[in-house]
Amino acid sequence: MLENFIYIFDMLGTIAFAISGVLVATRLRMDPFGITVLAGVTAIGGGTLRDMMMGSTPVFWIMDNTYIYVILLTALLSVLWLHRIHRFPAYLLPTLDAFGLAIFTIIGAQKALSFGFSGPVAIVMGCVTGVVGGMIRDILSGQIPYILQKEIYATASILGAILYVICGFLELGSIFSMVIAILGTLSLRLSAIYWHLSLPVFSDGR
Amino acid sequence: MLENFIYIFDMLGTIAFAISGVLVATRLRMDPFGITVLAGVTAIGGGTLRDMMMGSTPVFWIMDNTYIYVILLTALLSVLWLHRIHRFPAYLLPTLDAFGLAIFTIIGAQKALSFGFSGPVAIVMGCVTGVVGGMIRDILSGQIPYILQKEIYATASILGAILYVICGFLELGSIFSMVIAILGTLSLRLSAIYWHLSLPVFSDGR
Amino acid sequence: MLENFIYIFDMLGTIAFAISGVLVATRLRMDPFGITVLAGVTAIGGGTLRDMMMGSTPVFWIMDNTYIYVILLTALLSVLWLHRIHRFPAYLLPTLDAFGLAIFTIIGAQKALSFGFSGPVAIVMGCVTGVVGGMIRDILSGQIPYILQKEIYATASILGAILYVICGFLELGSIFSMVIAILGTLSLRLSAIYWHLSLPVFSDGR
Repeated sequence: MLENFIYIFDMLGTIAFAISGVLVATRLRMDPFGITVLAGVTAIGGGTLRDMMMGSTPVFWIMDNTYIYVILLTALLSVLWLHRIHRFPAYLLPTLDAFGLAIFTIIGAQKALSFGFSGPVAIVMGCVTGVVGGMIRDILSGQIPYILQKEIYATASILGAILYVICGFLELGSIFSMVIAILGTLSLRLSAIYWHLSLPVFSDGR
Repeated sequence: MLENFIYIFDMLGTIAFAISGVLVATRLRMDPFGITVLAGVTAIGGGTLRDMMMGSTPVFWIMDNTYIYVILLTALLSVLWLHRIHRFPAYLLPTLDAFGLAIFTIIGAQKALSFGFSGPVAIVMGCVTGVVGGMIRDILSGQIPYILQKEIYATASILGAILYVICGFLELGSIFSMVIAILGTLSLRLSAIYWHLSLPVFSDGR
Repeated sequence: MLENFIYIFDMLGTIAFAISGVLVATRLRMDPFGITVLAGVTAIGGGTLRDMMMGSTPVFWIMDNTYIYVILLTALLSVLWLHRIHRFPAYLLPTLDAFGLAIFTIIGAQKALSFGFSGPVAIVMGCVTGVVGGMIRDILSGQIPYILQKEIYATASILGAILYVICGFLELGSIFSMVIAILGTLSLRLSAIYWHLSLPVFSDGR
């Protein structure tokens, strides 16, 4: 039950990040195979680093090829769809990225806790799982990674992970905790996107 | 016999990528040690990530220092040679990169299959082993990674890996399969370089 | 005794690199959480890659959360301090980076030798541990990584690691060897910064 629930969310996050990779790749006028590679890197980059750091190898998508097939199918369908649309709304990329961020953050934290690691480690692992895929996508495509922009991004991921760990500590039930935490990250990040929210920044005065 | 064959190809790929790293490093006017570092990153970056993802740690070059010595020697000789040439032909870098791409793709796929992983995983591992070293080289040096350019690159790697997996499935013999697949990737990539071939691209119309 | 000695140095390196991450992050006008993430990536990036390559997983900071707390505290205090200073001297970043480089290089080499790996591998691991954190920091922040600049950087790390391995070979005593090697890297790098020293470079004449 819980496993299925997590698995479904995992696939939704994979699809969201894969499409975000396709959107960036098409902007770069990459060919279908390059698009698929960027979609894949974005979708599994974070979880792959998490698994390598935790020593959970071979990493998740090697043990379960479903991820590869889902990414291939997502890339194929998005390319065909984009080919017909020819133009996509500006908010689509950050919104999909926000969904991937929210879901993967919680799944990363959940996996770390299930391995018996501490709360702080779970929070870091959640953040890694959530932000790294999009970070690689942005670096590869020469964009400024979202995480480096003033708008709330790492903050949304970290707060979601903290929320999940606290819910777990309070034994509020795994599924309930995941939904709460995902909604927390998602609503915070989406609000930041639409109302351009940001925390006060500290600069060296230059 | 097969082991020796693979090993020789592995060394050839290592040398090709190491020289490509030296070429980029000299362009950046790096000092001899910086040049050696970039040569090393390019030559072992892909295989290192592959081994970490597969859980084949310590990674290959830790267990067999020959790779380190080959990279050092290659860097030394290339630097001395470049010092005398003072100018190298423009097609040298992409050509060496193509050789590394072709050889490492097949070696990565071969290693994944030898670990008992599935065909799809072998194709991904081949692509990772082939493209990541050059990708890091290009990102570090502030160039646009080849894989992001319109010309056939990821495509050549993926098709070579698919070719190898199919040959293996048809039990055409390991060495024969490797040669076929390497020639496939190499000829496709070299043709793309010389005749500026590219697949149709999908853009969002901007 | 030796363990404590290494541990203290490790923490000093972690603090130095964490502050360097904060300095870069504030320059980018990131928010407190983004700053903490960049501080963390810079402080544990190199050791994390080293551990993943050596197969020493879960990586060090997962097993010992002290690193996470030290980074959080360092980030918090530096942000508050920077908030009051509003401007920091130009030599602060490269100097802190030099301390992190020197300490982490030796700690990386020491860990590799303690795992029974060869001298050449220890030198590579030292270099990886020393340079990768700062490299990720610079790539993420869109700066040219120090390692790619003409001034002695990789050179200082490599020579420090070689010095440490030689001292170990001569059985000069672990602590003595570490101090010698750290001072070697530090003095070479600091001299390069202040007197703009660089090795002769090889260019392709362009």
